[in-house]
Amino acid sequence: MSAQGGEFGFIAALSRLAARAPQSLGLQDDGAVLALADGRSLVIAADMVQAGVHTLADAPVEQVAGKALRSNLSDLAAMGASPAFYLSTISWPGPPDEASQRALIAALQAGQEAFGLTLIGGDTIVGQGPLSLSITVLGWAEGPLLRRAGARPGDDVWVSGTIGDGWLGLTVAQGRQSGLDAADQTFLVRRYEYPDPRLKLGASLPPLAHCGLDVSDGLLADAAHLAEQGEGCVCLDPLALPLSAPARRWLARQADQDAARESLMRGGDDYELLFTAPPEHRAAIEALQAPADTRLSRIGRIVPGQGVALAQADGTVRPVRAAGFTHF
Amino acid sequence: MSAQGGEFGFIAALSRLAARAPQSLGLQDDGAVLALADGRSLVIAADMVQAGVHTLADAPVEQVAGKALRSNLSDLAAMGASPAFYLSTISWPGPPDEASQRALIAALQAGQEAFGLTLIGGDTIVGQGPLSLSITVLGWAEGPLLRRAGARPGDDVWVSGTIGDGWLGLTVAQGRQSGLDAADQTFLVRRYEYPDPRLKLGASLPPLAHCGLDVSDGLLADAAHLAEQGEGCVCLDPLALPLSAPARRWLARQADQDAARESLMRGGDDYELLFTAPPEHRAAIEALQAPADTRLSRIGRIVPGQGVALAQADGTVRPVRAAGFTHF
Repeated sequence: MSAQGGEFGFIAALSRLAARAPQSLGLQDDGAVLALADGRSLVIAADMVQAGVHTLADAPVEQVAGKALRSNLSDLAAMGASPAFYLSTISWPGPPDEASQRALIAALQAGQEAFGLTLIGGDTIVGQGPLSLSITVLGWAEGPLLRRAGARPGDDVWVSGTIGDGWLGLTVAQGRQSGLDAADQTFLVRRYEYPDPRLKLGASLPPLAHCGLDVSDGLLADAAHLAEQGEGCVCLDPLALPLSAPARRWLARQADQDAARESLMRGGDDYELLFTAPPEHRAAIEALQAPADTRLSRIGRIVPGQGVALAQADGTVRPVRAAGFTHF
Repeated sequence: MSAQGGEFGFIAALSRLAARAPQSLGLQDDGAVLALADGRSLVIAADMVQAGVHTLADAPVEQVAGKALRSNLSDLAAMGASPAFYLSTISWPGPPDEASQRALIAALQAGQEAFGLTLIGGDTIVGQGPLSLSITVLGWAEGPLLRRAGARPGDDVWVSGTIGDGWLGLTVAQGRQSGLDAADQTFLVRRYEYPDPRLKLGASLPPLAHCGLDVSDGLLADAAHLAEQGEGCVCLDPLALPLSAPARRWLARQADQDAARESLMRGGDDYELLFTAPPEHRAAIEALQAPADTRLSRIGRIVPGQGVALAQADGTVRPVRAAGFTHF
């Protein structure tokens, strides 16, 4: 459940609908959980991806399908579950030509092979809006899950991969960037179009981390979710932000370095994992980088207080309004 | 999986994607099945309902939501499973006003209370097409499931409720009917807008029926599915077709009675259960009518052969092309 706000409190009303099923986790986490008799958990998440909303309006079919699968898988990663199955409901914008049908099948096939899950159901319609895929992913977790609640003062704050590439890639794709060379543009757009769900990392985190989620709404907004559901203030060091080489080159060209770093932290579409863990697990967490095939960076601490704050060069901290992408 | 056709064989290609997961049942049934360690089955189905495709374009929010929930629940009924949970991804056509948000919540709340399931997850976006809800339902089955395969010569063919009301209701809603009084029109439109998933019946059928499915594509098209996956020809008696009083009054006004009955059998949106059972279970099946709160009618037999045929007044049978609604 990533939608927010609305005067009526739509998300709060949905949460009330979910209240009598503990399996919903109050719609507070990245997925729902069915605890099975054999001790395993079945984690279930569903998101719709629509051309023009989650991609550019003219994105090719394979990109819409790829993003639908990958963003859903990121929810499983965020819970520490390993993917097994998915169902896909597809609304075509009109009767699809054969090339579009083949492209969609190829994208799903590629996703199945890359991430180890298999289609088990769904539906296809010819609709009247843009291409939309609603995917429900199901994954297994053998032991404890990664949850959003659990941050506590003294924890390190960690993030996987690099932050800001997805947002920069979107601005490149929209033609709103100049000055980046072609290779950097290609890298960033690719990061926007094909996020990497951190499945191996997520599955390794439950014994080590106190809490975690995937960064889809923007680092600051998602850090705020950890603060809301845990104890303490998420205090982040902007200078510790892990940046890709193209993002560093972009940053070097910006007049206001602090504002530029904050933009990278507010942009969405990172699909990295943000988590907190006690300092005694630093070595164990650093050792996950090679097997999980991603960099892991300590970007802050949980300190007494609440909300999200940014460490300043002078040693003080500045609270930040952590609003990210608002769906409506 | 209800979509069909396309030159490329889109559904066949989806089935190949599903081939390595036996849980998919080859996408041949109304849902997927996870067999759990405690002996229970978790049945999962997903369908997207879009304003203008499954309802009139100007259908109110509550009708789109109601149909999404009810048509998905019909898939659980068709498998003999009892509903437990659902996830809902919603694409609004634009920023929804408070009345629309309240109407959607109220419709989901009403569905939860009527059918005994609870929201556990999903997503909400503001999209660019018509209002769309993709719902994934999850249900439990304690014993064997109802499947599409299993028809054999000698079986009776049964159907619940009445046939043709949904299709007639659509034609009324589209303004394509005249001569029906206001009460009949209201009844038929209501049947189109708010189908009744036959959950109690479905859950009672596995010990008695050889096979079954829900009639969503039209009685003849769905009978063809039973024929394809079972043994024998589904031979139906048009004069045994159960009709509501408004449908009987409509039929009485039609010049060509045979063609009119066939139209009722080709129209979709019935959401009744079609199943076959050996004659020795007739009494037990008739006894289900009161507890399941629906009429059950014997409308034919499985005979040697293949495909679907209609019994004629002269005692002969006529094979029928059983194509129903083709999604693209």
